[in-house]
Amino acid sequence: MGAGFGGLAAAKALARAPVAVTVLDRTNHYLFQPLLYQVATGVLSPADIAVPTRFLLRRQRNVTVLLGDVTSIDLEKRLVSADDGRLALPFDYLIVATGARHSYFGNDDWEALAPGLKTLDDARQIRRRFLLALEEAEKVDDPEERRSLLTFVIVGGGPTGVELAGILPTLARKGFRRDFKRFDSAEVRVILLEGGPRLLPTFDEKLSRRACADLQELGVQCRTGAKVTRVTSDGVHIGDEMIRARTIFWAAGNAASPLIRMMGVETDRAGRAVVGLDLAVPGRPNVFVIGDAAAAEMSEPHVKGPQAADRRPQYVPGLAAAATQMGEHAARMIVNTLAGRPRTPFRYRDKGTMAVIGRGRAVADLRGLRLTGPVAFFTWLFVHLLYLAGFRNRLSVMVEWAYAYFTYRPGARLITGEDREAEEAWQARHGGSARQQAR
Amino acid sequence: MGAGFGGLAAAKALARAPVAVTVLDRTNHYLFQPLLYQVATGVLSPADIAVPTRFLLRRQRNVTVLLGDVTSIDLEKRLVSADDGRLALPFDYLIVATGARHSYFGNDDWEALAPGLKTLDDARQIRRRFLLALEEAEKVDDPEERRSLLTFVIVGGGPTGVELAGILPTLARKGFRRDFKRFDSAEVRVILLEGGPRLLPTFDEKLSRRACADLQELGVQCRTGAKVTRVTSDGVHIGDEMIRARTIFWAAGNAASPLIRMMGVETDRAGRAVVGLDLAVPGRPNVFVIGDAAAAEMSEPHVKGPQAADRRPQYVPGLAAAATQMGEHAARMIVNTLAGRPRTPFRYRDKGTMAVIGRGRAVADLRGLRLTGPVAFFTWLFVHLLYLAGFRNRLSVMVEWAYAYFTYRPGARLITGEDREAEEAWQARHGGSARQQAR
Repeated sequence: MGAGFGGLAAAKALARAPVAVTVLDRTNHYLFQPLLYQVATGVLSPADIAVPTRFLLRRQRNVTVLLGDVTSIDLEKRLVSADDGRLALPFDYLIVATGARHSYFGNDDWEALAPGLKTLDDARQIRRRFLLALEEAEKVDDPEERRSLLTFVIVGGGPTGVELAGILPTLARKGFRRDFKRFDSAEVRVILLEGGPRLLPTFDEKLSRRACADLQELGVQCRTGAKVTRVTSDGVHIGDEMIRARTIFWAAGNAASPLIRMMGVETDRAGRAVVGLDLAVPGRPNVFVIGDAAAAEMSEPHVKGPQAADRRPQYVPGLAAAATQMGEHAARMIVNTLAGRPRTPFRYRDKGTMAVIGRGRAVADLRGLRLTGPVAFFTWLFVHLLYLAGFRNRLSVMVEWAYAYFTYRPGARLITGEDREAEEAWQARHGGSARQQAR
Repeated sequence: MGAGFGGLAAAKALARAPVAVTVLDRTNHYLFQPLLYQVATGVLSPADIAVPTRFLLRRQRNVTVLLGDVTSIDLEKRLVSADDGRLALPFDYLIVATGARHSYFGNDDWEALAPGLKTLDDARQIRRRFLLALEEAEKVDDPEERRSLLTFVIVGGGPTGVELAGILPTLARKGFRRDFKRFDSAEVRVILLEGGPRLLPTFDEKLSRRACADLQELGVQCRTGAKVTRVTSDGVHIGDEMIRARTIFWAAGNAASPLIRMMGVETDRAGRAVVGLDLAVPGRPNVFVIGDAAAAEMSEPHVKGPQAADRRPQYVPGLAAAATQMGEHAARMIVNTLAGRPRTPFRYRDKGTMAVIGRGRAVADLRGLRLTGPVAFFTWLFVHLLYLAGFRNRLSVMVEWAYAYFTYRPGARLITGEDREAEEAWQARHGGSARQQAR
């Protein structure tokens, strides 16, 4: 269940196993999530970073790919139901790889005002708001109003927040420089808010400082220790201070998909399923939970990393590499069990983490090797092209990147009537205090 | 008003005129409509055939581009209002280039069941239905139901209908051959219905026959003289006969945008504004209507073409080339009037017409030069790449085409949760007898 990094890795790892695999997902594609922020800013098209799941698995004879929305999971009866019960899938083994959504720490009404970035739809939503805010700014006469339209606040200083913050000023100031006639694109302000003491808290401290310096050079206001206490249609509040902004993006905090709670298993504070060392749910050896949906304790303590000093248990991080490894491990456990072999604990192999900052810079933390600046950027470029699934996308992405790099222009910035409707529908669904009611 | 072929040509032609130009459109992009069917089938991404209007006009100092939905046009007060009156644009001269929508000949309830193809949203809608029907077919067990899901009916044998019909069987049978495990992609049926006596009625008769033969070779059932009398959620009726099909596309008949009637000018049966030889509205020399929104009589009779024999007035055809020429002419008329020079009648220069049939074949009617087969296809390819606005898109489209040509696979076939929601919203909006109610 789920065709992200974890689910796909598990399905592939079962290719030669004597099992019939069903991959069930709400969308028909495998998404390269690390590049989602580039779709959100119009640099890449959705099709550049997503490949139909059934295309990726077409050669694997023991796999059936189905498009469906899971509506219930019954671990006792070993049955997954989808599409309001129209689709019933009995199972012997279940691998749950449903990923995570963003978390608003109990303030779910903020979602209408500050969308997050996890899916292609999220990316379109952010792209839409970014472009519509600029279009609105071209239409208004009031300077106060224009300033608020041209202020973009990003909440959360993790990799997603940093990457979004890094790309916006370059696009707005250089890419769109001549496009708008009624305002100067230098008026665009990007503010990155982080509640903790530093950006990129999972990275080495030096890299955090460097990321902050790089962002400031690009014109991003970086504020750490800035805990958002309220989000309204006019802006964000940090205690008594208020930043007026019409467009806010959310990149702070994750929560596992609600399906996990539906299964009735033990969860942690973020709603992730607590799993054993073999990644199976305690007491349910035929049910595995992997990727961002799982709270998996490290089987051996990592000495590295800022949390190493304290004695709290360490968890497998929410990274693509980790999800892939977990998918492969869960598949191996099923094969082992079928063959009468014992289970083994999952061991996470750290592949490092990276975050790109604007155009031509990045920070990378590769098992102690710390890279910054252009070297990190080109490492990032190379690694991401390497991992992008499917030849076509790789070529297409290279064309788009080369274009965006040399011209500063995003190629995929389109707004259609449906986009504007979708914006309204989205507002309505989230009980929207209608940020764009005036539209 | 309107940033299609006509509107953009007019804006560009006014570059050196002593006027301030405002381009107002509901979307933010200029769309290369002739390639829309390729987006509808997932071969190209929306961004491959659309470029932001303000990007195309960024160097032209006397132009302001605004995104807005026109809500009223007052020719007397010389005022265009948009966005429910929030935007008021007074004008001295007005060029209306609002294009056409498809016409259901009084059966507007058919739209929910059989979408047409004019905008990027339409293309997404068709892509969504095409892909979702295949996904559904993978899920059902009933052979009757599956047959109905795998039957695609296209109503209308003009260029759009022929191009859609030609591309579907190749994609479904070759491109997706291995992707679906529960049905054989050879089961996919494509049926093209034309009410008149032959396909491509505006082309030479020999080319019509050739198109029909080519389509049949691809496995498309071509039926002429087949007038659709009813469309339901189960299929189409042709008199007493019924073809069971869950997916129907509409490519028959155009109607000018409803804004034309709102202006209170004389219109023809298709709702197009009747204009004088200078393309201005009779009695309103400062208001021009161009492109598909206008019924413009030819200033000199064309001897060629099937209608040449009878004496009915001939109208400028609804082609991209014609819209571009009309835009340029309207701009010239404004310049002439400002300079005190007289107006001249619009003369349409026939650039010919083409329709591509599947993969590697086309028919072309170029002022008497008739091409068929691969020669016509490569002429088509060359001409379309040449006219595609913007270098980036051209390169990107070439990559996609080369990929699709050699692999038979469309690269942009994605379905997201929002797609499925949009499908439902669309159904609801059109009072949908909910073709996909069961979903």
